[in-house]
Amino acid sequence: MAVHIVADENIPLIDEFFADIGTITRVAGRTMSAADLSAADALLVRSVTQVNESLLAGSNVKFVGTATIGTDHVDQDYLQQHNIGFRSAPGCNAQAVVDYILSALSVLNDSRGQAFTDLTVAIVGVGNVGLLLRQRLEEMGVAVLAVDPFKDPQDVGELVSLDEVLQADVISLHTPLTTDGEHATRHLINAERLQRMKPDACLINSCRGAVVDNRALQQHMLAQPEFEAILDVWENEPELDLELMNRAMLATPHIAGYSLDGKMRGTEMVYQGLCECFGVPVRRKLAQFLPEPGIKMVTFTDQVPMNQALRTAIRAAYEIRVDDGVMRSAMIRASHQGDGSLRATFDQLRRDYPLRRDIPRLKVAVPSKCHDLQDTLKAAGFDVRAK
Amino acid sequence: MAVHIVADENIPLIDEFFADIGTITRVAGRTMSAADLSAADALLVRSVTQVNESLLAGSNVKFVGTATIGTDHVDQDYLQQHNIGFRSAPGCNAQAVVDYILSALSVLNDSRGQAFTDLTVAIVGVGNVGLLLRQRLEEMGVAVLAVDPFKDPQDVGELVSLDEVLQADVISLHTPLTTDGEHATRHLINAERLQRMKPDACLINSCRGAVVDNRALQQHMLAQPEFEAILDVWENEPELDLELMNRAMLATPHIAGYSLDGKMRGTEMVYQGLCECFGVPVRRKLAQFLPEPGIKMVTFTDQVPMNQALRTAIRAAYEIRVDDGVMRSAMIRASHQGDGSLRATFDQLRRDYPLRRDIPRLKVAVPSKCHDLQDTLKAAGFDVRAK
Ligand SMILES: NC(=O)c1ccc[n+]([C@@H]2O[C@H](COP(=O)([O-])OP(=O)(O)OC[C@H]3O[C@@H](n4cnc5c(N)ncnc54)[C@H](O)[C@@H]3O)[C@@H](O)[C@H]2O)c1
Ligand SMILES: NC(=O)c1ccc[n+]([C@@H]2O[C@H](COP(=O)([O-])OP(=O)(O)OC[C@H]3O[C@@H](n4cnc5c(N)ncnc54)[C@H](O)[C@@H]3O)[C@@H](O)[C@H]2O)c1
Repeated sequence: MAVHIVADENIPLIDEFFADIGTITRVAGRTMSAADLSAADALLVRSVTQVNESLLAGSNVKFVGTATIGTDHVDQDYLQQHNIGFRSAPGCNAQAVVDYILSALSVLNDSRGQAFTDLTVAIVGVGNVGLLLRQRLEEMGVAVLAVDPFKDPQDVGELVSLDEVLQADVISLHTPLTTDGEHATRHLINAERLQRMKPDACLINSCRGAVVDNRALQQHMLAQPEFEAILDVWENEPELDLELMNRAMLATPHIAGYSLDGKMRGTEMVYQGLCECFGVPVRRKLAQFLPEPGIKMVTFTDQVPMNQALRTAIRAAYEIRVDDGVMRSAMIRASHQGDGSLRATFDQLRRDYPLRRDIPRLKVAVPSKCHDLQDTLKAAGFDVRAK
Repeated sequence: MAVHIVADENIPLIDEFFADIGTITRVAGRTMSAADLSAADALLVRSVTQVNESLLAGSNVKFVGTATIGTDHVDQDYLQQHNIGFRSAPGCNAQAVVDYILSALSVLNDSRGQAFTDLTVAIVGVGNVGLLLRQRLEEMGVAVLAVDPFKDPQDVGELVSLDEVLQADVISLHTPLTTDGEHATRHLINAERLQRMKPDACLINSCRGAVVDNRALQQHMLAQPEFEAILDVWENEPELDLELMNRAMLATPHIAGYSLDGKMRGTEMVYQGLCECFGVPVRRKLAQFLPEPGIKMVTFTDQVPMNQALRTAIRAAYEIRVDDGVMRSAMIRASHQGDGSLRATFDQLRRDYPLRRDIPRLKVAVPSKCHDLQDTLKAAGFDVRAK
């Protein structure tokens, strides 16, 4: 059986994964319409395509895959009612977000003359991103406090209360944005909770802008010169509070998860879902198709101090300061132009983002006798070669 | 003939270079006295020892070497009158200062989303440091403007007027501090000249603090939010203007030249002077004794963009942000303590500085077909291996 697949033209590795399963028609995701699906058995989308009755009614589609972690654009009830298989790509870019946090922490450490092992990091939300971050940090010797009212400590490790995590040196947010119920996350970090943090704490938000009351944060930092914020997401983005950006230690345009590996892993996860749905054997693996990264290997000798090795390897894989610099200079230019320029610039920065590679793609060679260094670099996720 | 050498105990590689020429007595440089020199043929010092009549009168010393670029601590007239050979180490740390500037420019570029080849850099003072910087930058494709009233363009390349260099994107100072004559450098950069620079220019001072009117710079930056300063040296250091430090893009405690390689090269230069003076053959070379650096090699593939390769290699060799962060956090702590803490902290930062390695000690491997990348990395000073 040849499956006829209609796919968003911007999903990478479509041919590599799907060519020997069936025929492929590529269409523009933003303008995809019911007419495009007349002969389709399977539909592969990104978040720019609304998948609902008006797109699918009348088609023969038996499987929908979205190569994204979000699923808001898919009417899953409709799919279920019509017995249409579904697969998204939860966690496909968790590694990229973890890399973002490691690079951010490395910059914070440099600016304060401290090491990873000096830190206590709070993780708010121990889902795909939060759990991977927890594992990496704990194995690197960082003290971690975690809170997640919806998880079982048996699955994600010890959990504490929100009050307790507010005492950490770094508070990193990894929840969805929710507005209902006791544990709604909208403005989870508000003026009152900011008050309870250490005066020199660092708040990192790479989940959803409105999980932090951005105005309260801005006010708080006026009063607390040593408080730092590292922000990838913004309340009301692509609208941006320039003053908040100026005061933030690091500011980026919602790109924490944007890695080539994450994107391609999204395709792989959807591929696996499609194979399952159509009873086709899973023959392809992402590793076959990943291109070589620009930096192939960093080789250390036994002379390298731990801090220098970690900083060099992390920032060789991902230098958050570059994204920070590009965003600030683009925003300053945009602020001199007319209305709407900030919004347009924010979107453009995301659209033109040069996809980066994940930390596990960077090989680091370490002398065999340097066990601590090997262990720490492995813990951080690197592909460590003992030499 | 065995030469009896008295040497400051803090000069590195004394045994390695001098052991087979004679006998060596090590003494503390700060407390060295005439009594220490009773049996000495040669004296090796650093800048902490005053070398003058009261130290040397009555001794048999025939050669004085100072493993430093500065010679203010040596009474050269006295040496000449008494027919005592002399050697200092001019330029021994020029490479380290150039590395400092390259790392600083790389940070500036990141923060503005620009590349080295977008810059016009002015070099004020084309001596040992300025000339090496000029060569490196020009070969890297950076436009350079240079001014030096005491040099011949035949020796140092095209020279322009001070007025012209003020128009550059970056103005980097490499003069001595002089107070007499038409070309005195004290407050060479004053309010009026700052006014004539671009509003978003970047001033780098790694020569002597008072070459810049620090108060005028501080005032200028209040009015010009996009003007940047990168400061390694400070008027009245170890006294420090904290407000100027806070406003500076990068702030470091007079360590631009502090590399292990530079220090050891200082010993080598003094060794060569001593051999010449005593008619001993030059048998030892620095390369024999240089320890392996902590980062042995960075390996690029043909996928790496030029900017990423340069940034990664430069900052793997020397990350100026670390020195900047260590200084700021130490200074903030010191400012909460009593009188004199800032001075003491500045001195301590210099004394405890973890000597770094020069860019030419870092091997970078580049695919043979990537000629541009090879050439640019070579131009920047790296030990490039085509693979
Ligand atoms: N910036 C980026 O580029 C980027 C990339 C990937 C993910 N994200 C965002 O990061 C967040 C986490 O992503 P994920 O893939 O780990 O999601 P996930 O759904 O796997 O995990 C979210 C976790 O948050 C927990 N949670 C919900 N409410 C909470 C509360 N009040 N307090 C504490 N924990 C709470 C949930 O129980 C869950 O464990 C999401 O908002 C996602 O959209 C952003
Ligand atoms: N920050 C550090 O750690 C560090 C390290 C090394 C050197 N330095 C300082 O850097 C400066 C340069 O060092 P160097 O080894 O190249 O010295 P150098 O003596 O070799 O060169 C100085 C150059 O400045 C020129 N000059 C003098 N007055 C000038 C003027 N008014 N305008 C333009 N040029 C003028 C001279 O002609 C000379 O070519 C010195 O002040 C040195 O003390 C600092």
